[in-house]
Amino acid sequence: MDLTRRELARLAVTGTMLGLARAAEEERRIGYCIVGLGRISLDHFMKAVKMSRHARITGIVSGHREKAERTAAEYGVPARSIYNYENCDRMAGNEDIDAVYIALPNNMHAEYTIRSAKAGKHVLCEKPMATSVEDCQRMIDACRRAGRKLMIAYRCHLEPTNLHAIQIIREGKLGKIQAIESAFGFDCAPGEWRLSKKMAGGGPLMDVGIYSLNACRYLTGEEPVSVEGYASVVNQDGRFAEVEENLSWTMKFPSGVTASCSTTYGGTMAGYFRVHGSQAEMVALPVFNYDGLHLEVSNYGPPSITESNPAQDPYQFVAEADHFAQCILDNKEPVATGEEGLRDMKLIAEIYRSSGAGLHPARGL
Amino acid sequence: MDLTRRELARLAVTGTMLGLARAAEEERRIGYCIVGLGRISLDHFMKAVKMSRHARITGIVSGHREKAERTAAEYGVPARSIYNYENCDRMAGNEDIDAVYIALPNNMHAEYTIRSAKAGKHVLCEKPMATSVEDCQRMIDACRRAGRKLMIAYRCHLEPTNLHAIQIIREGKLGKIQAIESAFGFDCAPGEWRLSKKMAGGGPLMDVGIYSLNACRYLTGEEPVSVEGYASVVNQDGRFAEVEENLSWTMKFPSGVTASCSTTYGGTMAGYFRVHGSQAEMVALPVFNYDGLHLEVSNYGPPSITESNPAQDPYQFVAEADHFAQCILDNKEPVATGEEGLRDMKLIAEIYRSSGAGLHPARGL
Repeated sequence: MDLTRRELARLAVTGTMLGLARAAEEERRIGYCIVGLGRISLDHFMKAVKMSRHARITGIVSGHREKAERTAAEYGVPARSIYNYENCDRMAGNEDIDAVYIALPNNMHAEYTIRSAKAGKHVLCEKPMATSVEDCQRMIDACRRAGRKLMIAYRCHLEPTNLHAIQIIREGKLGKIQAIESAFGFDCAPGEWRLSKKMAGGGPLMDVGIYSLNACRYLTGEEPVSVEGYASVVNQDGRFAEVEENLSWTMKFPSGVTASCSTTYGGTMAGYFRVHGSQAEMVALPVFNYDGLHLEVSNYGPPSITESNPAQDPYQFVAEADHFAQCILDNKEPVATGEEGLRDMKLIAEIYRSSGAGLHPARGL
Repeated sequence: MDLTRRELARLAVTGTMLGLARAAEEERRIGYCIVGLGRISLDHFMKAVKMSRHARITGIVSGHREKAERTAAEYGVPARSIYNYENCDRMAGNEDIDAVYIALPNNMHAEYTIRSAKAGKHVLCEKPMATSVEDCQRMIDACRRAGRKLMIAYRCHLEPTNLHAIQIIREGKLGKIQAIESAFGFDCAPGEWRLSKKMAGGGPLMDVGIYSLNACRYLTGEEPVSVEGYASVVNQDGRFAEVEENLSWTMKFPSGVTASCSTTYGGTMAGYFRVHGSQAEMVALPVFNYDGLHLEVSNYGPPSITESNPAQDPYQFVAEADHFAQCILDNKEPVATGEEGLRDMKLIAEIYRSSGAGLHPARGL
């Protein structure tokens, strides 16, 4: 193909313009308003935003004015963009704020997602999505009505070791998947809001067991057709008057894959999954942590796969902050939508129902 | 205390006699009659008896005369001590045979245990004890009526790594136990009797899942108060027309400990257990194999425990052959009685009942 000089000149101009547009887009950072100044906001998400390419902190919602001002100063957030839980609807008029990051006790997720959507903001909401199936649906509806995006902060959907595990399975390297075991738990300190049924909606299943539940779904790419759980309290030390201490559950998937999972607030339980295929076995441990992730595939014969990911603390939160920002910039669906959070919540409700925990204090047998 | 020369002389004589008696006892070896010349007899138990202190092979029951004669020659068993499945009751009159080792397809365990007891022999029966709760009870009754000992060949009850795991728990090194995960399975070759519902009584749960079930019981020292299972078939390749391919189940123990287990005949599934305590976590993997066992206790802080047991193949079978022989010699109860086998069988029946597998072919959903 021969091009005239005029045509070449036109292409050069177009190319330059495209380049400039791309540069401008990279300059355009999504402004996050942080709702709740707890550990995960201060120590993880906000630090990650500093390292991100597409995001910046442009607002704060907190009940602690002094803490909010101190944090605002650190992140260059102007005083007019600091809100409390009463007046935060005013962020509707704040053009610096594109999206909110909601990191509140679980029972406040629905209210602040809905209020943020009504204020015209996109919502990145921490997991678990809410404390009931109904609230999850209301959150989805509110964001849809407002034409705003909703993402649930499932870190693992963007985390390389977890993504590699999914890829290994999809490529058939394990053969046909037969069974999965997974667990995640920790020894919860007394006095935490996590131990309040009202604020948390449940015990370790809501908080960390949800990682195992979600992992079994993304590893298989299937939705469980039935679940059964057992909840209990071993340590009768006053912590577990409202929520379960331990919960083990079993799931069955349409292809026949069965899964066995455990979670606890009363013990040491490194987050892991073990996937048994017809040809090989994969274990990832730890795999739900912020760093130091490790994955191994052992076959009866070679080749085996061993992969360590020593990625440091804020890494996953950078990916999260940038991914949602890009979804907003490019008008794309995030990897973990409200519907994804709703699916887990429906399963959590069913596990609690079958285990007899959740609605009533779990006091063992 | 002053002793006269006469007293000293008497003590010397008594001492010599005691020593002679002990030597005689060590010389007295229990004669095992091997019932069934499959892999576990030929490659494991019989080789182990050669290495044992208290046992010897004194009889063989087999349907293959030539194989029986060849094996008898190797072990110095006289032709008159070779039986087939029709005439084996004649071993009643054979004083060289003290006990039988039953290593037949599961559905033959009850018949040959009962016939052996009636012939006046002690019975060491391979796991699973039988294919039904009723058969287990009949085996216990028959041995009791005959005044003969019955042991189920649960290797792990005598295996050092498993015993150390129990000791670590009992000493409180993990704190209060919260949850256990365990699995054991393998890819079963087509055509094996294990795939016949009639001969095996069930699928991988009967064969290898029973290790996880039994381990959860000896690790906690408790009996489950409820169990729930899911069975399925993933590989519709003709192997699983009668028994399940996969089974995952959950158990709850009186103290509140919950357990999640998996077993398979369609995948790679190294036998392991993971025990989560309030203070530390213990993983033993592999732990149900014949050798190469490995155990680790990881605390949030030190001290940790790492222990490898490279014991070779027949080791566990030597312990088994000698333990039962000593129980007979000393008139003591074996570590794994018929009642122990019966307890597992009752739980297996309940897992099958809840999972919908067992009585009917498991064909997934």
